[in-house]
Amino acid sequence: MSRETDDLLLKEPPETDEDLEDLALEENYELNPAYVPMVVDALDRGDSERLRELLGALHPADVADLMGFLSAADREELVPHLQPDLLGEVLADLDTEIREEILEHVSSAVLAQALGEMESDDAAGVVDDLDAGKRAQVLAAMPDVERAAIETTLAYEDETAGRLMQREVVAAPQFWTVGHTIDHLRRERGDLPELFFDVYVVDPAYKPVGACPVSHLLRSPRDTPLAQIMEQVTEIPVDMDQEEVAYIFNKYRLISAPVTEPGGRLVGQITVDDIVGVIQEETEEDILALAGVSDAGRDADFAGIVRSRLPWLVINLVTEAVAAAVVGAFQGEIAKLTALAVLMPIVSSLGGNAGTQTLTVAVRAIASRELNAANARRVIIRELLVGLFEGASMGALLGVATWIFWHDLRLALVVFLAVLSNFFVAALGGILAPIVLERYGRDPAVSSVVVVTFMTDFFGFLALLGIAALILL
Amino acid sequence: MSRETDDLLLKEPPETDEDLEDLALEENYELNPAYVPMVVDALDRGDSERLRELLGALHPADVADLMGFLSAADREELVPHLQPDLLGEVLADLDTEIREEILEHVSSAVLAQALGEMESDDAAGVVDDLDAGKRAQVLAAMPDVERAAIETTLAYEDETAGRLMQREVVAAPQFWTVGHTIDHLRRERGDLPELFFDVYVVDPAYKPVGACPVSHLLRSPRDTPLAQIMEQVTEIPVDMDQEEVAYIFNKYRLISAPVTEPGGRLVGQITVDDIVGVIQEETEEDILALAGVSDAGRDADFAGIVRSRLPWLVINLVTEAVAAAVVGAFQGEIAKLTALAVLMPIVSSLGGNAGTQTLTVAVRAIASRELNAANARRVIIRELLVGLFEGASMGALLGVATWIFWHDLRLALVVFLAVLSNFFVAALGGILAPIVLERYGRDPAVSSVVVVTFMTDFFGFLALLGIAALILL
Repeated sequence: MSRETDDLLLKEPPETDEDLEDLALEENYELNPAYVPMVVDALDRGDSERLRELLGALHPADVADLMGFLSAADREELVPHLQPDLLGEVLADLDTEIREEILEHVSSAVLAQALGEMESDDAAGVVDDLDAGKRAQVLAAMPDVERAAIETTLAYEDETAGRLMQREVVAAPQFWTVGHTIDHLRRERGDLPELFFDVYVVDPAYKPVGACPVSHLLRSPRDTPLAQIMEQVTEIPVDMDQEEVAYIFNKYRLISAPVTEPGGRLVGQITVDDIVGVIQEETEEDILALAGVSDAGRDADFAGIVRSRLPWLVINLVTEAVAAAVVGAFQGEIAKLTALAVLMPIVSSLGGNAGTQTLTVAVRAIASRELNAANARRVIIRELLVGLFEGASMGALLGVATWIFWHDLRLALVVFLAVLSNFFVAALGGILAPIVLERYGRDPAVSSVVVVTFMTDFFGFLALLGIAALILL
Repeated sequence: MSRETDDLLLKEPPETDEDLEDLALEENYELNPAYVPMVVDALDRGDSERLRELLGALHPADVADLMGFLSAADREELVPHLQPDLLGEVLADLDTEIREEILEHVSSAVLAQALGEMESDDAAGVVDDLDAGKRAQVLAAMPDVERAAIETTLAYEDETAGRLMQREVVAAPQFWTVGHTIDHLRRERGDLPELFFDVYVVDPAYKPVGACPVSHLLRSPRDTPLAQIMEQVTEIPVDMDQEEVAYIFNKYRLISAPVTEPGGRLVGQITVDDIVGVIQEETEEDILALAGVSDAGRDADFAGIVRSRLPWLVINLVTEAVAAAVVGAFQGEIAKLTALAVLMPIVSSLGGNAGTQTLTVAVRAIASRELNAANARRVIIRELLVGLFEGASMGALLGVATWIFWHDLRLALVVFLAVLSNFFVAALGGILAPIVLERYGRDPAVSSVVVVTFMTDFFGFLALLGIAALILL
């Protein structure tokens, strides 16, 4: 939560130079690239006083940002200059790769202290990144209550609501009034979450029956019963996948939602600021998957990058070799009419692009739940019609160009038919591959591109060379 | 805001069957595909009683969802069955294409009433979709205050903070105490925003100097001065681009932020639920742009879809024709050695995929501000090294395959060199194209793919055929 961190900034002595703060960020709140060499310079000179000034002028999120722009060696040097509270904030904001690397250089004692400053969900995320040995050391160095909270969170599966939620919630029984609730909050202020947006109204079994937004509590007279101003809640089961949680938050524009365990008992809450990160993460995964990159963060090292990209290149080599085998089968025809070798890549490339367009739109429609059994038939027919129309248009264009260039009307006809039929294949593959993959529980973003580009290359070559062999040669 | 809509549901008579509510949504809160034909059936029978039941079981966001699964004709029939308050909620949630289509079938009087039920930012978005004639009619039918609010919002440029913000804010002077503030809120309850998360503390010139989260107000003793519990605020200039606003919210994990006009006066606030939509919209644009689809919503008609895809296919035809001209220049070599026609598409396809991987990662890094002047040099060098390594690996693989297939060591060497150099070109184009486009103020997602696939096709053909001509023929 940013407000905690603002607190930290305010509590610190006003040593931070106004000028430094102005310099640190550009007008759009991006970290100023010129700030990075200043930090590197202070690190090189071992000037910890200057480093304290430079870091003091930054919000923890900007320190995390700065980390990303430093080399691994510089990062390692910088870490000891971060106070435990700042270190905790920074760790919560860092990408996994950089975080794992930094965690290796922080002592278990310091880390235990930093984790104590964090919310249970963020702290659990950090502990999850530790190797087994260090994890045991760090947990042993923490107070029992904090350790238990982290261990409970880690007991939920990765990427579920249980991992996203914070266990700190504010709940009140149905029969309380506004005044009763406010008095209770003032008494318990030390034990409350730092920020909260709803007071959940619970029944005697601690099941949520409604929620009172805090702004409603504030403006209602003290004698108003909570039951009168509470609103319906959308409960999130603790084992729900985070992608579904994000979908629900986005759809109903939620600010916070209670998390319940099987049976309905309230065990925590998820707030929208956690969801913003999930939405970015999931869409990011889709973008990279569509480009054939498995996940590797911004600061993956050389080996990490290669590992994230080479597998798809190898698959691409194999499928492309199969498609090229079609060309191999028509080598005689190509030797007789080399214009076919010129036209070949154009026909397959056009089909590939048309297929990619269709499948990308389909993958996104599936991801945002806009394409399902209720409208699949209509969308498929629409895509096939679009494919035929586009194929006819582009086929005509390329056909005319072929006629102008080679003055061969039959070759132009071959090209037209090849493009038309390949666009039909592109549309068919582009719309069906994601739907079928989804139905069989696979991520449509990951494999659709392989399937569709293979289809359009294979069929593009086959159509052009096959029709040419039939009509021309 | 979902809470308002929950309110609406609660206020309505309990005519909605529990069974219908259970049926309407699947366990993951997706609209049940089986619900769509039930609605269509009631529409066909003109059974408005049944329609009221069916719609009553749905959250307004689900009604908007349902709209997307209906045909245009069914949607037109359904609209008159929506009460103005529900219509307002649904319009706020609909995609632009469907919304524009529906707006044509709603009378100005009904629309004016529906807009009155909405927040100023949502209402302005709807009015913005109206054609000039209808807009004048609708605005004339609204009360002066509401009309002024909408006109003021529309005076800000599209996709800026001014359009995103709601004008309704809660502000308090610095010298007030918690008790004073709560009393004020209770007195003014009718005029407050439906939901708010912060009370902004302002100076006499109405410039924000801090913010008190409502949860802090709730738990602090009544005599606490606001100045003591307020926190730093991140001000958003009213003309800031929405993409930058989203970046700031995400980076600092903000829940709400004050919007100020030049000079610093508070004019509104942006809340995180508006930002979730912006983040999805902006990432979505990137995904589609990378696939060569300009924006066309889920329910674009045939012409809309073709318009969104054909331009990139035509550009692709032109660039691919230029690349194919290289093949044309080597027709003699291909006639002599048709194996080159088989290998050609493999070399260019591998390069194209490697280039797409690199540029996609670069486009995302630029979008999330992880790649800028501070680390560009390091990233470029890293990408070139990765490209060379991958090129050597894949070149060796394809070289060995070539040797096995054609038993020609010199051809295998040609293939190795062609793949290696094309991967270098792919890396160079993949990392430089987005950086250069960004520097010249262009959207790197939109044109990078065209540039890079042209480079890898052109150079892939040139390398394979050129090196073959030099070494073999």
